[in-house]
Amino acid sequence: MKRYLTLAASAAIFAAFPLAAQTTAAEKEKKEYPSPPEIVAKAKAEEWMTIAPTDLMVMDLAPDAKGKARRVVIQLMPAPFSQGWVSNIRQLAAAHWWDGTAVVRVQDNYVAQWGDPTEKKALPGGLAVVPESEYVTQIGKGLNPKKFLPNFLAAFPDYAKKFPEVAEKDPKEFEAEMRKRLESTADPYAKGNRYLAGWPTGGNYENGTFWPVHCYGMVGVGRNLSPDTGTGAELYTVIGHAPRHLDRNIALVGRVIEGVEHLSSLPRGTGPLGFYEKEEERVPIASVRLGNESADLPAFEYLSTDSASFAAYADARANRRDPFFILPAGGADICNIPVPIRRKAQ
Amino acid sequence: MKRYLTLAASAAIFAAFPLAAQTTAAEKEKKEYPSPPEIVAKAKAEEWMTIAPTDLMVMDLAPDAKGKARRVVIQLMPAPFSQGWVSNIRQLAAAHWWDGTAVVRVQDNYVAQWGDPTEKKALPGGLAVVPESEYVTQIGKGLNPKKFLPNFLAAFPDYAKKFPEVAEKDPKEFEAEMRKRLESTADPYAKGNRYLAGWPTGGNYENGTFWPVHCYGMVGVGRNLSPDTGTGAELYTVIGHAPRHLDRNIALVGRVIEGVEHLSSLPRGTGPLGFYEKEEERVPIASVRLGNESADLPAFEYLSTDSASFAAYADARANRRDPFFILPAGGADICNIPVPIRRKAQ
Repeated sequence: MKRYLTLAASAAIFAAFPLAAQTTAAEKEKKEYPSPPEIVAKAKAEEWMTIAPTDLMVMDLAPDAKGKARRVVIQLMPAPFSQGWVSNIRQLAAAHWWDGTAVVRVQDNYVAQWGDPTEKKALPGGLAVVPESEYVTQIGKGLNPKKFLPNFLAAFPDYAKKFPEVAEKDPKEFEAEMRKRLESTADPYAKGNRYLAGWPTGGNYENGTFWPVHCYGMVGVGRNLSPDTGTGAELYTVIGHAPRHLDRNIALVGRVIEGVEHLSSLPRGTGPLGFYEKEEERVPIASVRLGNESADLPAFEYLSTDSASFAAYADARANRRDPFFILPAGGADICNIPVPIRRKAQ
Repeated sequence: MKRYLTLAASAAIFAAFPLAAQTTAAEKEKKEYPSPPEIVAKAKAEEWMTIAPTDLMVMDLAPDAKGKARRVVIQLMPAPFSQGWVSNIRQLAAAHWWDGTAVVRVQDNYVAQWGDPTEKKALPGGLAVVPESEYVTQIGKGLNPKKFLPNFLAAFPDYAKKFPEVAEKDPKEFEAEMRKRLESTADPYAKGNRYLAGWPTGGNYENGTFWPVHCYGMVGVGRNLSPDTGTGAELYTVIGHAPRHLDRNIALVGRVIEGVEHLSSLPRGTGPLGFYEKEEERVPIASVRLGNESADLPAFEYLSTDSASFAAYADARANRRDPFFILPAGGADICNIPVPIRRKAQ
């Protein structure tokens, strides 16, 4: 009996994942192989990209049962992705359209969804009907590398700014490099994955298409059956394992960058698909505002996915060598390498 | 304005994911391509495997704020996986060791964890110290197919029972078939994935090892730094995107088959790693019992992963052709094809 008591005590079983006590050998190893958060903490100031307040959307739910505020901050997706829906969403937020609507559905290991429960609230005029073709972004056409490179640089100007030498590259060499990067990760949903403009994307180099992917916390547009693509008035966020089968079937328009727990920890709905069955179960939305209309919103920044620190972080996520791990996986799926996002230091 | 009102009304925006109204064309298509749940609903009785009550564990949390019961049902992992820890867990449950312990940690998009918050409760005598080598199951050795087949059939007797012709197979042919199956899915964490004995596993055919993988709802054993492997007294369940980097680094011992929402919807802890900072935040565990000690427990069954219906279901999960989808993904990761489990009809 004593043996196990000793074991329990010395093992500090509540550490469970790496926390406190480490041996000297482990400490040494740790210095050689920093953990993913340690790499992120050491990233240089210029590797962080400030998110413009106009690209943020703030959703304040009604306070919880204890009167505590529940704020969800969403970053809207930048060009060239999903801009038709994003434009609609900007209009809906500017019109304060979501004020008084509610979270109406929480399905375990899937999504939390919000919008107008009455389905009768008038939408503002001027919303676009976005075609299904916009679920993907077409870069150039086919395999012609001469066209791919200029189109790519036009679509992702930050990439060109960060790597001016790319614009000078031999298009064939660039194509080979892109293809290599795209094909370096085994992924059942896409020929290749890549972070573009700070977002996780799937890609098909053969036809030059790229699209955002359904990772935890990503925000998408509810829709009815095809050819409907949704207006953006009905939104959901992923609160479970990445439902990647939805990629290219629904528009993704952003990601929750703070407060996702206010959606993911809500009681699950007991109706079909996790809809709340009773009106009183719904979680009222007090207001939704664009970041530039929200006076008390701090600034946020994300780690540039084109930075050296992000590359080191992604490698460390795929090959954990920090002391807790005994066997590095040798790979990671794109949704298991979340882009680091934080409040900007004042 | 009218146009969008009409659109909103006709689109029944709260359907969002397939629900009610369908066109006649879509109805027709649906008949040709049943959805994954429709395939499961039509599976034959003999394709369902009853789970023995002795392989179940029932955790009753204290009732919630409204006095509602919160029961979590866990299926323990069968041989040949993780049996050292599973045996410890059976002893802990038989000793009613978890009664009065608590859920102590809920980290968003990661795990909910429970055990003794005092870290001082005496463990029952006779618990095994399980070596790290048990994180994987070795089937045969290396590439010798003559040894692989009999070892495989010994390790997975249900497989042999379901497919008696396998035992008659040319070992080389069997090896080729297994290798093909293992290598058919792109996965960054394992050379191949396979469902074995009803559980999602990663595999490396080269060295004949297989191991359970960290999908949503899987239950694992908290541990301290290597070479500690945990006793099983400290358990966690995955409540977010599959943390597959933990595969082969921590023991998996089961999965939540009912009531996972009682863990996944708990408030997130605000301490480091999602630990609850105050004692009153912890969620008390009233009792944990093995299924055979739990009088009011219904019977459960899972869809045999060796059945024709499971193969059709897995194919449909990877290639959604039911009416909501416009583009089948062409693949799925193993954690996005959860094994169907249900209460057995009385």
